[in-house]
Amino acid sequence: MRLKPLKELGPVELRHLIREGKYTKQTSGLAAGYTQANLVILPKELAYDFLLFAQRNPAPCPILEISDVGNRTLSDFATDVDLANDFPKYRIYRHGKLAEEVTSIESFWRRDLVSFLIGCSFSFESELIAAGIEVRNITQHVNVPMFNTNIPLKKAGKFHGNMVVSMRPIPEEQVIKAIKVTAAMPKVHGAPIQIGNPEQIGISNLQEPDYGDAVEIKSGEVPIFWPCGVTPQNAIMQVKPDFVITHSPGHMLVTDIKNVELKY
Amino acid sequence: MRLKPLKELGPVELRHLIREGKYTKQTSGLAAGYTQANLVILPKELAYDFLLFAQRNPAPCPILEISDVGNRTLSDFATDVDLANDFPKYRIYRHGKLAEEVTSIESFWRRDLVSFLIGCSFSFESELIAAGIEVRNITQHVNVPMFNTNIPLKKAGKFHGNMVVSMRPIPEEQVIKAIKVTAAMPKVHGAPIQIGNPEQIGISNLQEPDYGDAVEIKSGEVPIFWPCGVTPQNAIMQVKPDFVITHSPGHMLVTDIKNVELKY
Repeated sequence: MRLKPLKELGPVELRHLIREGKYTKQTSGLAAGYTQANLVILPKELAYDFLLFAQRNPAPCPILEISDVGNRTLSDFATDVDLANDFPKYRIYRHGKLAEEVTSIESFWRRDLVSFLIGCSFSFESELIAAGIEVRNITQHVNVPMFNTNIPLKKAGKFHGNMVVSMRPIPEEQVIKAIKVTAAMPKVHGAPIQIGNPEQIGISNLQEPDYGDAVEIKSGEVPIFWPCGVTPQNAIMQVKPDFVITHSPGHMLVTDIKNVELKY
Repeated sequence: MRLKPLKELGPVELRHLIREGKYTKQTSGLAAGYTQANLVILPKELAYDFLLFAQRNPAPCPILEISDVGNRTLSDFATDVDLANDFPKYRIYRHGKLAEEVTSIESFWRRDLVSFLIGCSFSFESELIAAGIEVRNITQHVNVPMFNTNIPLKKAGKFHGNMVVSMRPIPEEQVIKAIKVTAAMPKVHGAPIQIGNPEQIGISNLQEPDYGDAVEIKSGEVPIFWPCGVTPQNAIMQVKPDFVITHSPGHMLVTDIKNVELKY
């Protein structure tokens, strides 16, 4: 029996609940103010190429922390943590295809696995809201619209591809503020990559996103495009690796680090 | 016969001169405004651990660019470049010991080598001077004083150790400005790690640096300590790897990227 409402739980309490299998849903809106992280787990043989890919493409692939090989713990973003159980839901990919969705990856664990924690736009959305900027996908309770672009990434070993971006419509008079707020957070994608001209990056219809949901763009609003964390997952899947684990969309790790700390 | 004075040569002209073996001295003060880079070349088998070490310790180990395995060229910091000839002087280390100093590493090249270009405090010193802050080691025409500290680095695979810092005395009334100027340049070590209290980081005598030269500290000046690029070299040498190449101190790569670009 839980004593506190879910929304009042701190990150450690939440991770315990999730670890025990008592919470398996999305983490959006939980542990307000704390950084949530994406997950990519790869065999060591792919880890160098992927780390190099992230180093060369930090805006779409901002690495928050990397585990030691075979290790299910972290040092910086959480201490009381078990990477094999503390995400509410995981996806197992084999040969580039989704094989199953599970709430624990304990039985899949291998000694050659490396876990990459990747920054997520949840963190900068909460800073935008704190700065008085409406985030439409949050207001409309839908996923942020995401688009494939024609922006080539820097290749690294096996990994290559184009950037995926997320779009948020911002009132014209708040565009500069939105740039300033997000530019201050390079560990969670940072500044936008394009403002107001979707055609230039190969996007033809804002109402038909490649991932997530369409949102309303009101008169006087400018569509703003940020590098998106779907980018590294896309690049990995194109390689069709034998074995990859990711978090399930929206089912993130709640860390002990506050969003505001990501500015420093 | 050179037609222009050395100080007026741009980065491409300088690299050509160096590539042809016609300039083999220090690069300090050359191609003013352009970023100069440190070099570490490691066999691929050590590259993952080293990249992870740099990712976990970005302040002392800021990576500017990493070559593809076996490749002597770059994509971002210089295009017309040959990493085996464009540094005026290189050091070859075998089993952790300096074996020789050469002006070309062409004959040492191996297909398993990875080159790491690392940010250098030359870049932020030029921004400090532009902001009206005297950099004592430049005024005195000596090397910056550098010290071993008790600040532990985050371990990564084989690599570990303590941070090495550089010290610059700054007038009390300019300390905040000096922090702001360098904090804006995280790709070249960023903000200081300690201000005014050397004992706290294990430094007992500012007139006896572990590397470089002592500088005068005038009345009303505060010693400020920045993470230093000697840190990764130290961490590598402690592992005593079979084969490592670095630039010779002060003999850097002059890149095509302006220092001011490192802010973005």
